[in-house]
Formats: sequence, structure tokens, C-alpha cells
Amino acid sequence: MSKSKILRDLIISKSIIKVGGAFDAMSAKLVEISGFDAIWAGSFAISATHALPDASILTMTDFLKAAENMVDACDIPVIADCDTGFGGPANVNHAVKKYEKAGIAGISIEDKTFPKQNSLLENSKQELLSEKDFVAKLIAAKDAKNDENFMIIARTEALIAGKGMDEAIRRADAYQNAGADAILIHSKKNTPNEIFEFTDKWKGHIPLVVVPTSYPSVKVDELISHKIKMVIYANQSLRAAHNIMLKTLKDILEKDSLEQVNIELSSMNDIFTLQEMYKINDQQKMIETNLEKMGYIN
Amino acid sequence: MSKSKILRDLIISKSIIKVGGAFDAMSAKLVEISGFDAIWAGSFAISATHALPDASILTMTDFLKAAENMVDACDIPVIADCDTGFGGPANVNHAVKKYEKAGIAGISIEDKTFPKQNSLLENSKQELLSEKDFVAKLIAAKDAKNDENFMIIARTEALIAGKGMDEAIRRADAYQNAGADAILIHSKKNTPNEIFEFTDKWKGHIPLVVVPTSYPSVKVDELISHKIKMVIYANQSLRAAHNIMLKTLKDILEKDSLEQVNIELSSMNDIFTLQEMYKINDQQKMIETNLEKMGYIN
Amino acid sequence: MSKSKILRDLIISKSIIKVGGAFDAMSAKLVEISGFDAIWAGSFAISATHALPDASILTMTDFLKAAENMVDACDIPVIADCDTGFGGPANVNHAVKKYEKAGIAGISIEDKTFPKQNSLLENSKQELLSEKDFVAKLIAAKDAKNDENFMIIARTEALIAGKGMDEAIRRADAYQNAGADAILIHSKKNTPNEIFEFTDKWKGHIPLVVVPTSYPSVKVDELISHKIKMVIYANQSLRAAHNIMLKTLKDILEKDSLEQVNIELSSMNDIFTLQEMYKINDQQKMIETNLEKMGYIN
Amino acid sequence: MSKSKILRDLIISKSIIKVGGAFDAMSAKLVEISGFDAIWAGSFAISATHALPDASILTMTDFLKAAENMVDACDIPVIADCDTGFGGPANVNHAVKKYEKAGIAGISIEDKTFPKQNSLLENSKQELLSEKDFVAKLIAAKDAKNDENFMIIARTEALIAGKGMDEAIRRADAYQNAGADAILIHSKKNTPNEIFEFTDKWKGHIPLVVVPTSYPSVKVDELISHKIKMVIYANQSLRAAHNIMLKTLKDILEKDSLEQVNIELSSMNDIFTLQEMYKINDQQKMIETNLEKMGYIN
Repeated sequence: MSKSKILRDLIISKSIIKVGGAFDAMSAKLVEISGFDAIWAGSFAISATHALPDASILTMTDFLKAAENMVDACDIPVIADCDTGFGGPANVNHAVKKYEKAGIAGISIEDKTFPKQNSLLENSKQELLSEKDFVAKLIAAKDAKNDENFMIIARTEALIAGKGMDEAIRRADAYQNAGADAILIHSKKNTPNEIFEFTDKWKGHIPLVVVPTSYPSVKVDELISHKIKMVIYANQSLRAAHNIMLKTLKDILEKDSLEQVNIELSSMNDIFTLQEMYKINDQQKMIETNLEKMGYIN
Repeated sequence: MSKSKILRDLIISKSIIKVGGAFDAMSAKLVEISGFDAIWAGSFAISATHALPDASILTMTDFLKAAENMVDACDIPVIADCDTGFGGPANVNHAVKKYEKAGIAGISIEDKTFPKQNSLLENSKQELLSEKDFVAKLIAAKDAKNDENFMIIARTEALIAGKGMDEAIRRADAYQNAGADAILIHSKKNTPNEIFEFTDKWKGHIPLVVVPTSYPSVKVDELISHKIKMVIYANQSLRAAHNIMLKTLKDILEKDSLEQVNIELSSMNDIFTLQEMYKINDQQKMIETNLEKMGYIN
Repeated sequence: MSKSKILRDLIISKSIIKVGGAFDAMSAKLVEISGFDAIWAGSFAISATHALPDASILTMTDFLKAAENMVDACDIPVIADCDTGFGGPANVNHAVKKYEKAGIAGISIEDKTFPKQNSLLENSKQELLSEKDFVAKLIAAKDAKNDENFMIIARTEALIAGKGMDEAIRRADAYQNAGADAILIHSKKNTPNEIFEFTDKWKGHIPLVVVPTSYPSVKVDELISHKIKMVIYANQSLRAAHNIMLKTLKDILEKDSLEQVNIELSSMNDIFTLQEMYKINDQQKMIETNLEKMGYIN
Repeated sequence: MSKSKILRDLIISKSIIKVGGAFDAMSAKLVEISGFDAIWAGSFAISATHALPDASILTMTDFLKAAENMVDACDIPVIADCDTGFGGPANVNHAVKKYEKAGIAGISIEDKTFPKQNSLLENSKQELLSEKDFVAKLIAAKDAKNDENFMIIARTEALIAGKGMDEAIRRADAYQNAGADAILIHSKKNTPNEIFEFTDKWKGHIPLVVVPTSYPSVKVDELISHKIKMVIYANQSLRAAHNIMLKTLKDILEKDSLEQVNIELSSMNDIFTLQEMYKINDQQKMIETNLEKMGYIN
């Protein structure tokens, strides 16, 4: 079964889908191992691990590579954050073809102007693209789909850009109408109030998606009761990794020996297991068994 | 001053150089921020974050890209782990040209057969290349250098492969004679005894390098007193990140809200700073100041 | 229908399959337009266009990228030349997974030692891998196949390496037995005599493939009558392009104006058509029609 | 001496610089061998060989890779066509850093909106960016330069977009004032008249560059007498290659044998020489000589 079909089925069968953020194949695999339903290949996290601003500096080539590495390493669906779609409708069309072919289950594109800035950056410019121009991108995206299960998530930044609730509702309607498979409603408020106002007022029928980075107090039950079908925990593992790596490195420099570093490390074996190092040994044994049967070794 | 010159000068001026392992630009930048002298772009860690075995599966193209991302993000020197040199002497020659051009300060190549297996994997095959064939690689490496400060570190796996101390000494002599700029002596013992036996017996004059993953109790003072000039902490930050990400992700799934996750996260601002998100704002201001002077805006 | 199935069906339905060599997406598209059955993503030609020796210098990453660009641009099957398989059995296994996922219809791997040298280079080393070690690669390749139609072509260089007809026959038997889907028998003689001796003597049942670069006088009918099912014209278009580009460039420098250059050029329109520039206009119109229906423009 | 310095010196010392278009390392090397002064890594040609529209579909990553392959293969300077700069000022700034680091001698950016369409495509949209916004890109480009010789060529599409001569003059002034190192004035007319009107009227002091694709009758002497310092023959070798490859492939299919194909092919040896296949043999000999001296072989 395709990853996009798995994702569609999960949305139908579960009360809410939990998606964990990742930035490379290992962090994606940890999302899978932990028990999440799907992986979010977030552009903020991928940009951060390249030490480059989350401002359309990395290219589609780079983002696609990162997302494809996750697909190749994991069995659960990968959803890729495609920012504004890398340009105009022709770029979106091209991106959908490439992402679909790479085995990604769905993408998110947002209604800001290209190049964009991160939605949570203070004093940043958050300019919305006109509704018409973003609808044009959705038409181009839908046209490019070969697999009907491939999911186009339309993310509106109307609330982030301070355009008000009515604009957010209007855009969600327009994007659903233009063929979006889900709406991601984003907010930078530190409570979920405006999100819930949106979900209560909006009368659409496609799934709603949220990213509660700025309102971490929201409870899963509340999300479910407000008709939200997908929650993305976009960057907590990245931020935990950043935090602990800095501590570990500083501690190594301060202490006389590695042994004195008082931070829990996964064992070499844990890493070997994740990267399937032992599979090479299994493969080697399988080959030897066959070579033996064929009479090459005894 | 070139990064390779910086590295050479550090070796001369300091009693020991401390090198921190990294696998992408962010982890490299954290090595720099913490105060390390240089960055180790380790093939085990880079393979792990690609969720692929450390067994010559990733190609030179992939490893070089990871190392170059580090160079572009950091001011301190990057030393790249090039495993067995990606093939024969012609591959080594090509690699040196590409790595040098990318701004890497030096590389390490090891005397195992291609494709290799990680040195610390239990029950793994650790076959040594003949001394002659590895010397051929060093000659090819030296011939490719355009920048004389570019550092070729010859890593001998003689002790890992169980070939004994005499073989390790003989190979270190041969590699120094063939033009290596430093010797990395590797061990999988859980004490530094065989390393110190080596450093006490070997009469060479080029710097010695160690990677104390398997003997974490060794103290920096001991390394210095045994004439070791460079110590590489290859994978502790990776293993700390692996450990904390798994905990964080599991905790997110177990708790009702992000707020209840009891793991320290770096702030969004910490990440924004690392990825130089604010520099884009500074740049924008600089441009506006200039546009104003030119009369385009007022 | 998958490209690999298309290729399998062609082999069954046609007396001989003609495969044209390519090195990038445009040259592949020209192979398709001309009417060939399939495309050969040759490592010699791809290396040449990178101005790098055909000696395992480019990596799997680079070769795969070139072949995938061809797949994305064309409807006919692409067969990729994977040289010696980029290392040992584990590398072959990994390559098969990656190539299959990229939509390539089949690959060829050859029984020389890694790194290899081009088979037609004078005074070059042509060392054969032991039969056992190459069989190990074939077992690893077969094990990696997810799509049973994906074709593993085993190429024996026994004749190139001067090992004689019996060795060639023995190896072809062994490779068929190990799961190869076809045998490529290569020769550097300037007549097809040794090829025909091989095809007459060999009693295998899987398809035979030849690359008549060095014996260009051989007729298609002769190939068919000697039970050859696939002929690869690996590098003629590359060599024609090299020849005409050098002439064109020299002529531009010698003449007073472009108009005086007496070499036939395809029109800008020909190129625009190949690269589907007009499809962007069609797409734009489709989007505008939709926007009109939706009331955004009138 | 850096390639950018070589380019600067050529502009000073020669009456006009001739630049040949290329799309990969081999075509670039042929430009060098033919005797051109520099290489043009054109986005139209690179897009064409990827069989993708010249409409900002390929990313900076892809274009940079193609240009860097040329740099690595050639000794003469490479000038890279960067279209509109891959986005806004921050993208231009990033691109300049990456291209400069890759050893490219200079780039061209043009004053159309992103994503762009090829200038010579009939019925295509040719929208100009506002002068202010393009000046912002030039400021960002200049700010990113580390090597003062790195050349920023500002290409104005004012004539292509039908904005008239005065607009073209005004923009050239503005771009020179903003720090451009040269002006590329482009035209799609089939005579050089409007180009010459421009060069006669414009009173700037930085070098002028033209691309006479649409007015091939113009003579080199005329260009020189109209103060043009650089002429780019952007795509003739591509179009010659396209033409001859199609002919060759069709002919192979029509004829009974390769021998009957009546098209001049470069020899295998010509290609081997270009890709420096023999250097590997030289290198091998050098290594063997050294191994002999060291007593490893005799």
C-alpha cells in the first residue's frame, strides 16, 4: 500500500493523527520508533540543521533530498513542508511531481509571498499572497498529482499575518474549493483561542491541521473536540537535540575525561541498530549460505 | 588565513587539539560555539543520520556535501573522515582535490579494505589493506594537494584488526615516510593501554591523533603526556541527541500537552540565532538604508 | 505499467531491442524521439560529460542522478550502467534499491574489480573479480529487488580481460544460475567473431546483450541470427555531439558573425519543444480558465 | 591567480572577450579547447539538457552544480547565468557567496520577476521587476562579495519587455550606480539596431555585454566599434549537438550497421583525452615509481 494511502486511511480511522517533526533520516526514524503516525519534514528544522535561515534559502533540491532520505529510512508516511511552493504555479506543479515520485505522502504549501520568513520570528515580514495567486498554485498542484491519495495541505497564514478571522475563513473556503485536501491553520498566539474560534466557525469538510509550537498548553482532547484531525509537533526533538548537544560538548571540554561527562548517551549499539548495521551482517550470512549451496565455499 | 593553516598553527601552538564530532551544519556550529578547536565530520555519525550503515554505503558525494555544509557554517577548521578513501589511489587523488577545494582543512584515510565496516562493530570483518597498497593511496593523496597545509591523516587499523603492535609501528613508519601529515592510531580496547604502548614505542615525528570512544576513562593530561596532539570526540553529541530525541518524542505521545513534556528544549530564538535568521533582518535594513540614500524610499 | 514491465515485454515481443546511449535528460529524450526501444545511461558517456575519467571516479550518487533525470524526462525504459556495482555486495544491494525506486528499468553490473577502467582503453588494467565474488554481488542484487521485473544484467568482461572463451561461458552459466536476468557479453575485437563464437556455444536461456562499439560493421540481422536480444549503441551520439560542438565553437571564433557559421543548428523552437517550455503556457492557460470559472478573473 | 582576476584582466587587455556557452563539463572543456576567453554556464542550455523548461524550474543547487563541474574541469573563467537571482535579495546574497566559493568568476542576474520565462520565447510573459527591487538585489549581491574581482553582471530586460530605450538607459545607470560590474543589454530583435542605439546613448563606464542569439548577422568588428566588451555565444553548440544527435540516432535505426552511419564521430580516444583518462595511467606510473624507490616493488 502506498504511503499516501496509509496516510488517508489513518485520517479516516483515527480521532487525531500525531505527526512528529524530523530534519534527517535518523530523527525521522526516531519519530517512527516512538510510535507517531507520520513524519513532518519541516523546513524550519531542515534549514536549522543546515545552519541556514528559514527564509527560502535552501532550495527544493535540498528539501526534497532531506525528505526522500526520510522516506527511504521509514515505513510510516512522510509529509513535507514545502513553504510557499518554491516560486509560482509552475514550480508548485514541478514540486508535486518530484515529491510524489519520491514516495512522500503529502506536502504543505502556504499562502505567503516567496521568499518567505519563518512565521514565528519576531518583527518579521509576513506578507500574504493574494487569494487568487494562491488558488492558482493549488490548481497547479492538483493538476500535477498522479496519485489521487497524495495529499495537498493548504496552509493559511492569514492569522499570522494579522488579517483577521474572516480572511482566514474565506481563504480556507477558497482553498478547499480549489482542491486542497486539508487546511493547516497556523497561529502565533500563546493560547489556542483563535485556532478554536477558527475551527468552530469554519464550515468546510476537509481535515484541519495544526502546529501548536506557540500554544504548547493545548491538550490533545481539546484538539479532537475542536474537529482537528492532525497535530504536528514540528520542532521539539530538534530543540531538545540542540540543547543536549551544546551541554554535552561544553561538558566534554570542561571535564578531564569522557567518563566524567554526566549526560545520558545512547550506546554505539543503539545507533548501529538504527542504521541497520547488523543487516549487513545478516545479508553477508545469506550470501554465504547461498554461495555454500552453489559450491563456492564449504 | 586558510582553515588548513589555522589547523597547522593550532597543532604547533597548543599542547593538544580538541576536535568535536559533527554530522551536519548545526551540530558543527555547536562544536564551534562550545569552544572546540576543530570539527570532525565523522563518517559513522553522518551515516547514522542518514539511517544507513557505516559501511561505505554513502558515497563521496554525500560525505563531501555534509562536510562542506559544515565549512560554510563555521569559522574553525573541519577535518573530514574519508574512510578508506572511496576506492583506490585514483579515488583518493580525486577526493583530496574536491575536499581541499571545498575548504576542508584535512582528511583522514584508513588502511582497511574497501568497502569497510565500522571499527567498533562486534563480529565485524576488519581486513587490512596491504601496506604497499595503502602507501600507494598516500602517494596519490599527497600528489593531489594544492595547498601544502591541507592535512592528510593516515589512520592505521592494525590494532583494531588484531595485527599486533609491531605491525602498527611498522605501518605508522611507512605512512609517515609516504607523506602522511599525521597518524591516527585507533583501538577498540576499553583502556588506553595499547594506545600508550604505541605512542611510547613509536619514534615518528608527525602528530598523533586518537579517538577515545571505547576508552572514555582516559584523561586529557594522560593523552598529552603520551605525546598525543589531537583528540577526537567523534560521536558523543550524536548519541546524546539520539537519546534525548527518543525520550522527547515518547514523552510527547504520552503526555496530554507539550507543556507537560519535562525535557529541556532550546528556545525558538536559540535556533533562530544559530541559523542566522536575524542576519536577514540586518541585511534588509542595510539594503533599505542604501535604497534611502539612493532616493528610492524615504 | 512500470518501465521494467515494458522492458520485459519488449524483450519477449521483439526480435531484438535497440537501446540508445545517453548522458543527460536531453540526449535521453532524443533517443526516445528517434524511436529506440530503451535508453542506456552509460557510465563512460556520463563520466565524459563530467570531464572525468571512466574509472569509478563519479559516485553512485552522481550516476543515479543522471539516470533519474532521464527517467523523469522520458516514457521509454532506462537501463543504467552501474559498472562494478560501486563496491561490494552491500553496495550492489543498496544500489538496486535506489535505482529501482528511481524508476530505472534495469541495471548492468560487470565482473571487474573496483575501481574499474574503461574496457576499450588501450594498455589499461582489466582485472576480473573472482567468479565467487561476482556471484555474491548477483545474489545481493537479486535479494534487493522489490519489483521482480527489474532487470539485473550481468556483464562479463572475461573476453576483454583475455581470459578466453571457456571462462566466458563458465561465467555466463554461473551468473545465470545466480539469478541474473540477462548476460552482456563484451568484446574489444574489431569483428564480432568472438561474440558469435560465444553466442553459438553458450547454452543459457536468459537474453544476451551486446555493445558493438569496437565492431561497428556487425549487421542487425547477424545479431538476431546469433540469438542476441538487445544491442546497445552506447556512445555514438556523444561522439557526434563532441565532434560537432568542437567544430561549431572553432567556427564561431574564426568567422566574423554567427550567420557565417556553416553548421546546421536546431532552432530555439526545437529546444523549447524538447524541454516542454510550451507546456508551461498550456498550464498557465488551464489555470486561468479555472480561475475564470471560479470568478477570480473575467 | 583567481579566475575572477583572470576575467578582469582579459576585459582590460582585449578589445572584446568571447564567451562560449556550455551546459556541462565536457561542453565547457570544448569551449576552452576551441580558444574562447571564458565559459557561459547558461540557464537555458542547462535547463534544456535537463529536459526542463527555462522558467526557474531547476534550482540554484542544480545550476551551481553544473557551473562548478565546469570550473573543476577548465582553466579559463566560468561566468554563471543566475537568472533573476533565485528569489529576493537574501537569495541573491546567498547565491553570490556559494558561486564565489565554487570558483566561478562572475554571475549575471536579470531584472525580471521570479519565476522568469526565457527571453526569446514567443508569447511569453516578460515582466520587469521594479528598478528599486532590482537595485536591492544588486546591493545584496555586492555586500556578499568576498573577492572584489568577482563580477556581478546586471542584465536588463527592458528592451525585451518592450519598455523602451529610455527605461533601458535609466536602468543601466541605476544598476551601475548600485554597484554592478557590467551591464548585459539584451534584445530579441533580429538586427542589432536597438542594441547599438543603446550603446551609443548610454554614458556609463562599466563594460557592456551582449548575447547575439537573435541577431546572428552582427559582426565582431561592429560590436567592438559600439563599445561592447563581451559577447556571449550562449547556445550554438547546444543546438548543433541537439541537431547532430537526433540525426545520428535516427541514422543508426535506419542503417543495418554502425559502419553505415554517415556522420562524423569523434574517436573514443578523443573522448578519453578530454576526460583525462590517460592521466590515471600517468598517476599510476608515478605511484609505481615511488613504490619502487621505497622498495615495495622491484
